[in-house]
Amino acid sequence: MSQQLIFTNDVALQLDYLITQGDKKPTFVIADTNTAALVLPSLTSECKSLSDARLITINAGDTNKTLDSLAQVWKELSDNGATRSSLIINIGGGMVTDLGAFAASTFKRGVRFINVPTTLLGAVDASVGGKTGINFNGLKNEIGVFREAESVIISSCFFGTLPLDELKSGYAEMLKHGFLTSATEVNSLIERNIAEIGSELMLQLLERSVKVKQDIVEIDPTEKGLRRALNLGHTAGHAFESNAMASGQPIPHGFAVAHGLIIALILSHMRLGFETSWLYKTAHWVETNYPKLHFTCDDYPTLLDYMAHDKKNKRPDQISFTLLSAPGEIHCGQIVGHNDITAALDIYRDLMHI
Amino acid sequence: MSQQLIFTNDVALQLDYLITQGDKKPTFVIADTNTAALVLPSLTSECKSLSDARLITINAGDTNKTLDSLAQVWKELSDNGATRSSLIINIGGGMVTDLGAFAASTFKRGVRFINVPTTLLGAVDASVGGKTGINFNGLKNEIGVFREAESVIISSCFFGTLPLDELKSGYAEMLKHGFLTSATEVNSLIERNIAEIGSELMLQLLERSVKVKQDIVEIDPTEKGLRRALNLGHTAGHAFESNAMASGQPIPHGFAVAHGLIIALILSHMRLGFETSWLYKTAHWVETNYPKLHFTCDDYPTLLDYMAHDKKNKRPDQISFTLLSAPGEIHCGQIVGHNDITAALDIYRDLMHI
Repeated sequence: MSQQLIFTNDVALQLDYLITQGDKKPTFVIADTNTAALVLPSLTSECKSLSDARLITINAGDTNKTLDSLAQVWKELSDNGATRSSLIINIGGGMVTDLGAFAASTFKRGVRFINVPTTLLGAVDASVGGKTGINFNGLKNEIGVFREAESVIISSCFFGTLPLDELKSGYAEMLKHGFLTSATEVNSLIERNIAEIGSELMLQLLERSVKVKQDIVEIDPTEKGLRRALNLGHTAGHAFESNAMASGQPIPHGFAVAHGLIIALILSHMRLGFETSWLYKTAHWVETNYPKLHFTCDDYPTLLDYMAHDKKNKRPDQISFTLLSAPGEIHCGQIVGHNDITAALDIYRDLMHI
Repeated sequence: MSQQLIFTNDVALQLDYLITQGDKKPTFVIADTNTAALVLPSLTSECKSLSDARLITINAGDTNKTLDSLAQVWKELSDNGATRSSLIINIGGGMVTDLGAFAASTFKRGVRFINVPTTLLGAVDASVGGKTGINFNGLKNEIGVFREAESVIISSCFFGTLPLDELKSGYAEMLKHGFLTSATEVNSLIERNIAEIGSELMLQLLERSVKVKQDIVEIDPTEKGLRRALNLGHTAGHAFESNAMASGQPIPHGFAVAHGLIIALILSHMRLGFETSWLYKTAHWVETNYPKLHFTCDDYPTLLDYMAHDKKNKRPDQISFTLLSAPGEIHCGQIVGHNDITAALDIYRDLMHI
């Protein structure tokens, strides 16, 4: 069963249609404290069937994507008569859709759910691919399942109130999709000013970007082969993200991906002759648009350890990267030794002036 | 991907073959304290590759089929370098295979697992169908997913040391499968003395019984239609089981099913003209072979409430039963009102002399 992707800027209308289809069933909305305060009031005022649903609120922020929040959602579903025919609507950023989708996938062994991403990152990254889960034991998405939503409503209408940093975070994933596609796509994204993209154009860019991911996921739903392409920038990116979190100064996921992308491009040059002009151009763009990372060579062992724990690795002693020989020319499962990664981190620090 | 069922009384040989196939990978064994003490020593002495695997032990008993035990398993997998290519071997009763399979299905969004049921109930009931999960919020199997093992090794060689009550518990599920098949199958099971069935005959009976379930599950893997047939005896059975647990005197699952089967046959007579001779014969057999349940009409509201919470119900106010018009003639999704259930409980108490 493949999920239905609905691109629209009239979310209330779509939701109402999806909720009222078929038999009446107990309906639940999962949102975080931010979404519940900022997004739900106007949505429920326009959508009667949504206002009739029972709201489950979890604390906002990736630090709350935990087993405790999950158990709270399970308990509220259980206490409030959720059945196998219930419908769960996850409204929020990637944290809410990941955790809410995992709760829905495991409650009574699986109930139907709809995702409504409210951030650019959630729309471009978390809306396709069926990745659900929570952080556990200090590791991101350590626990979860692959399960797609029944429908995903993708809209840019929520982005107007997003901080610019949130937009930039999602945009990094769009750039990753660009690199997986072609030189033209990369250029069209790098040459734009993120802050000035209007709502309708953003919805069009989103549709193109989501399509890239959808094509890859359809070929490889459980990440055995080609889907690892989507890991571009994420092996180092996750390490940067975990390291920042451990140091008490968490950074948005997309920021980590933007920097991780540079590491991937450096390794792509070292291993596959990827052209340096692309590398320099992208490094400059990232340096201009995203805050600097702060680490020294003393942090290398920690970063390497995080990379070794990446769940895409077949063995803990083999660190696997997705690399490129050119934009759109993808090489998955490239095993890179610690020395090369260390060299890439050195080059990265030179390029980014840290 | 459908799971491989292996019927054998040489478990060590099969396990060794499955573990050593393909690349070497981190292998984990999940067992409970009972299995670790009673079954593993001889298995590991005969199977070198099993003795090399890392053992994760959880506390025995259905009361430990909890989120806490699950989190313990996840943590030990995470701390000890389990990867997506790891192999997890669940050795134990249904509690271990349910919880271990759920842990495997959700760790890093799913790793491969093999189930080795060591009880008759586990072999006949939990080995096919991909039901994984834990108890939660006081409700059985409230949380879980559908996911089949890569292989299930089904053997009767562990049953020699089982208490007779354990055998009887599994035998009730076999009788249920008999009722879903034909009058001949029911008679062949009711006329046997459970305590006297030898190991080879038991393996043959098991293979026939598991086949019944396998045929049904193949048609309907996620319990949308025909699979509800397997719920025969379980709507009331689960209520008896939950009630016994809540009263501090838990009973084995199969005992609850044996009694629940009588309720289903009574309702089958009331609603579908199921012949009373089958009902009397089965009630007599259950009364002879299984301990009496103890409840009065004061317990009816509690029992009805447990039935209303059964996850097979589409709506909490509609209690759904699988019923029979004759052995092998199955009617799923029969909605029965509270008055009829109350009448059936009255008749049951008369029949069983309680």
